[in-house]
Amino acid sequence: MSAVEALAQSRGLWEPSMRAAVDRLDPRMRLVASYHFGWCDAQGAPESANGGKALRPGLALMVAEALTGDSTPAVPGAVAVELIHNFSLVHDDLIDRDEERRHRPTVWTVWDDTTAILVGDAMSSLAYEVIADSGSAYAGAAASALGLATRELIRGQAQDVIFEQRDDVTLEECLAMVAGKTGALLAVSAGIGAILAGAPRSTVEAFHVFGNELGLAFQIVDDLLGVWGAPEVTGKPVYADLAAGKKNLPVVWSLQHGGDAGAELREWFAHHESRADVPLAELEHAADLIEKAGGRQWGIDAADQHVATALAAIGDLGLTPEAHTTLVDLAHFVTERKL
Amino acid sequence: MSAVEALAQSRGLWEPSMRAAVDRLDPRMRLVASYHFGWCDAQGAPESANGGKALRPGLALMVAEALTGDSTPAVPGAVAVELIHNFSLVHDDLIDRDEERRHRPTVWTVWDDTTAILVGDAMSSLAYEVIADSGSAYAGAAASALGLATRELIRGQAQDVIFEQRDDVTLEECLAMVAGKTGALLAVSAGIGAILAGAPRSTVEAFHVFGNELGLAFQIVDDLLGVWGAPEVTGKPVYADLAAGKKNLPVVWSLQHGGDAGAELREWFAHHESRADVPLAELEHAADLIEKAGGRQWGIDAADQHVATALAAIGDLGLTPEAHTTLVDLAHFVTERKL
Repeated sequence: MSAVEALAQSRGLWEPSMRAAVDRLDPRMRLVASYHFGWCDAQGAPESANGGKALRPGLALMVAEALTGDSTPAVPGAVAVELIHNFSLVHDDLIDRDEERRHRPTVWTVWDDTTAILVGDAMSSLAYEVIADSGSAYAGAAASALGLATRELIRGQAQDVIFEQRDDVTLEECLAMVAGKTGALLAVSAGIGAILAGAPRSTVEAFHVFGNELGLAFQIVDDLLGVWGAPEVTGKPVYADLAAGKKNLPVVWSLQHGGDAGAELREWFAHHESRADVPLAELEHAADLIEKAGGRQWGIDAADQHVATALAAIGDLGLTPEAHTTLVDLAHFVTERKL
Repeated sequence: MSAVEALAQSRGLWEPSMRAAVDRLDPRMRLVASYHFGWCDAQGAPESANGGKALRPGLALMVAEALTGDSTPAVPGAVAVELIHNFSLVHDDLIDRDEERRHRPTVWTVWDDTTAILVGDAMSSLAYEVIADSGSAYAGAAASALGLATRELIRGQAQDVIFEQRDDVTLEECLAMVAGKTGALLAVSAGIGAILAGAPRSTVEAFHVFGNELGLAFQIVDDLLGVWGAPEVTGKPVYADLAAGKKNLPVVWSLQHGGDAGAELREWFAHHESRADVPLAELEHAADLIEKAGGRQWGIDAADQHVATALAAIGDLGLTPEAHTTLVDLAHFVTERKL
């Protein structure tokens, strides 16, 4: 089965439980959460907007399926990781003052800051409640892993905000930030599938590495797309990260290791990062400097390497060829480059 | 043992575990949380500021002690309820833009909104992690109860914010809000002590009622103090709630059931609630109207009744006289009126 098919099939398994979980919330928080998930408009009228790829819950179920042929025990884990992911999206959108998410106005813009804070809080707590109420013998281990990942996620978000105010962030610091912000939750998504399937510790660890490495690869690809992605693919303007003055991973690599082109790029940022409406020719010039500095090639190679490490981690687990193929396809799907 | 002595003794038991839990956070979140708890200043230099009464963790430990003579199994529950309480304080201070907490600047004023959101998120998640890592056979039930209480807490806070913009909030709506905002967490504080002590369901339920009723009594007393409390007791200006235009419980009761005096009070609020610097004589006049309407007496009677219901709930549990006496003393301590 292809990864896309597996994700679609997974949704049928976890989404009813997610709706049941959200139904536990009081009417107001339920409305706001349902809006965020794309199930209704801001007045509560049903709609089915894009609720995102739902990679994390899909991953949890695919791992359990791969290990035991039965993904059912991982459903509470799938719901929990998707709740944690979405709590962090709602709070991040507020923190970053992002006005759109999945082509719809974000919660804080539709309602207000208070509502965004509270619905995020409610989703976070609900994640643990779902695990606790699962009745699984492995609920404690699952909650513990989820707690650790959430701490990492928050560390990553806090660093991201601080790094934006600093001028001297190193590649190593950025990668540590990304490991928290993107790696930790993908790691626990895969790991929790293994935990709830009753897998031994070494298998849980292997899937943890798999998810974490996929997360790093995903972020590097996302950053490449932030410079060279076609607007019709990314849904963002051309050179979006450069226009926003964002020093993403290929930029940071170039500044640190890019020789003369890197030095020129540093000057470019000093001139442009606080300006709005940088002319297209200037954005093109910056993208060329990153390419000359080697930042684009570094990104392509680094993403490939993280995918390879991810796949190596699960190579020895004795999965069925079918299960293995689906996970390999997922790894490539997550890091697909449309540059 | 008096309740005050029991609370002090409890602190010695749960605070080391709380510090160990906070030590798990990344350095920045650890600093902010430690500041909030009064363990250090904003630069991290150790101090011991007032960290609050710590009623909730004390209650969890006292209940376990009362049931089995051993409070140790309840320590993770004590830490968890105090983390949930403090996560909600940090977020509420931000939402309400309160600048002081326990006579120190609040987290969002010392740092910023982002930091307040993230450290609250981190404390919330950490609460569940502490429970999950407790190794208790009752960890699942404890996490489930904590999740339910947190949902109620968030519902109460959301209602509180909405009610401030409405003119027609009924006493029943206000009491439902208070049950969420204050009752639910005191209920689970007592309940989690019983859960982790391995008590049967009926005993857990009894302590749940005990905590919930104490919470309602506590809030009513707090609202009485908001009108008639002496500044040296409350740490707030005279007639603080009236000066802030806040329609607290005795006010809402008076508006609804207070006849002519209630009608006059409604006019008073229409004139004064959006004004700053209401003259002292006007505040005195409003307090007199509440008293004439019967709102003060209602508050005194209602608080007494909730305390009586709380004590009745634990009257038949066969606790030792010593344990029972301490819990009775706690109920009176929590609802002490210094008007």
